[in-house]
Amino acid sequence: MNEHSFSSAERDALYRTIYSRRDVRGQFTPEPIDEEALARVLMAAHHAPSVGFMQPWSFIIVRDADVKHRVHGLFQKAHEEAAEMFEGEKRETYRNLKLEGILDAPVNICVTCDKDRAGPVVLGRTHIPEMDVYSTVCAVQNLWLAARTEGLGMGWVSILDQDRLKGVLGIPENVVPVAYLCLGHVSHFKDQPELQKAGWRKRLALADLVRFDGFDQDAQAGDAFAASLLDRIRIAQEGLENGA
Amino acid sequence: MNEHSFSSAERDALYRTIYSRRDVRGQFTPEPIDEEALARVLMAAHHAPSVGFMQPWSFIIVRDADVKHRVHGLFQKAHEEAAEMFEGEKRETYRNLKLEGILDAPVNICVTCDKDRAGPVVLGRTHIPEMDVYSTVCAVQNLWLAARTEGLGMGWVSILDQDRLKGVLGIPENVVPVAYLCLGHVSHFKDQPELQKAGWRKRLALADLVRFDGFDQDAQAGDAFAASLLDRIRIAQEGLENGA
Repeated sequence: MNEHSFSSAERDALYRTIYSRRDVRGQFTPEPIDEEALARVLMAAHHAPSVGFMQPWSFIIVRDADVKHRVHGLFQKAHEEAAEMFEGEKRETYRNLKLEGILDAPVNICVTCDKDRAGPVVLGRTHIPEMDVYSTVCAVQNLWLAARTEGLGMGWVSILDQDRLKGVLGIPENVVPVAYLCLGHVSHFKDQPELQKAGWRKRLALADLVRFDGFDQDAQAGDAFAASLLDRIRIAQEGLENGA
Repeated sequence: MNEHSFSSAERDALYRTIYSRRDVRGQFTPEPIDEEALARVLMAAHHAPSVGFMQPWSFIIVRDADVKHRVHGLFQKAHEEAAEMFEGEKRETYRNLKLEGILDAPVNICVTCDKDRAGPVVLGRTHIPEMDVYSTVCAVQNLWLAARTEGLGMGWVSILDQDRLKGVLGIPENVVPVAYLCLGHVSHFKDQPELQKAGWRKRLALADLVRFDGFDQDAQAGDAFAASLLDRIRIAQEGLENGA
């Protein structure tokens, strides 16, 4: 704790939000979203970090049934193509997973990135041209966390052909449809990520993903800070996995 | 409010985190980071959403002075190149901005994305190959918000040549160095984004960035939900700008 830390209760609220956020596909209810809550989650997104303060995002709120059906059609086509890429047992598991709530969720939101928003030369984008898209992804994550505290579920549908999605939503050439989101009230939030529950993949051990001063480098012998950090990570992950 | 919402106090804690998070470049103090706090922010990052639950991220913790100096050299070179891209007055302003805290911050973290972590076919990445990098950006944003509640400042340095950065950190070919972060205690957090304070760009009006059912479409006449949503967004933004 230091003079700039939040209170323990506030800090715990953030961690609770992060740990209980889920990618929701199958638990949407038809209950409409309140405009105040929607305004708050969009405002949270708008306060994401952005490269050169360019704020490259726009938010297309989709409620029209015809538009939703056309996007759902794009999902179905892409999902069929994707299934063919998996082999054997994985293919069957894949086909049986519910992967989107486009028609179930009352509101869909396409979050876009306008690469021209701040002119051709953008502070901080000069050497990594994707930085504007990364900023937009930060906005999506803010929106996701805000939705969770509002009791709203959100799912990110990435099984879509982006060029066709641009056609359906009339998105111009230099604007990237970064994320297609489904948002709504839910019957419940699952206690674990859906793919973890389904046995698709396991949560990795974070301690294995922490490196020191180089990608190939483990903690050096005698590095007390690194040893202590890894210990604390292992203890924290064990605590979380035992439902702490 | 609904049965899945967090309490108002918890929700407010998240919004306060989002609104007071800053990209920190110039306010780092040499005070070391506590391992417990670092473990918590890394664990928050590890609980970001990831496409196909692939968890493609690794975290290279950089403390070695020589490594930091080499990365700082990459920044200086890229920063000089970038300055040449701006014209007239903007170029002078650009040169005078403090844009990184590589040597000042006790800890730097390079967050990488391993595109091979879950094999060649990844659920949800079949049609948008960048989804794994987007997942990694979500981890960065979780880390950033967690750091803020811990009273730690964080800055994202994007003015770097990524290929050279890979060389310095020994990052293999199929791993992307998504973000190079500076993390540490700070003398203070600014009340507004640095580029806003410096007059580089203004905060945009969110209501202008919200579209309905298509990128070119304003709210239709008679759409009460849309009108109410835009009103609430305008009121919320005014409140925030008047220091509410």
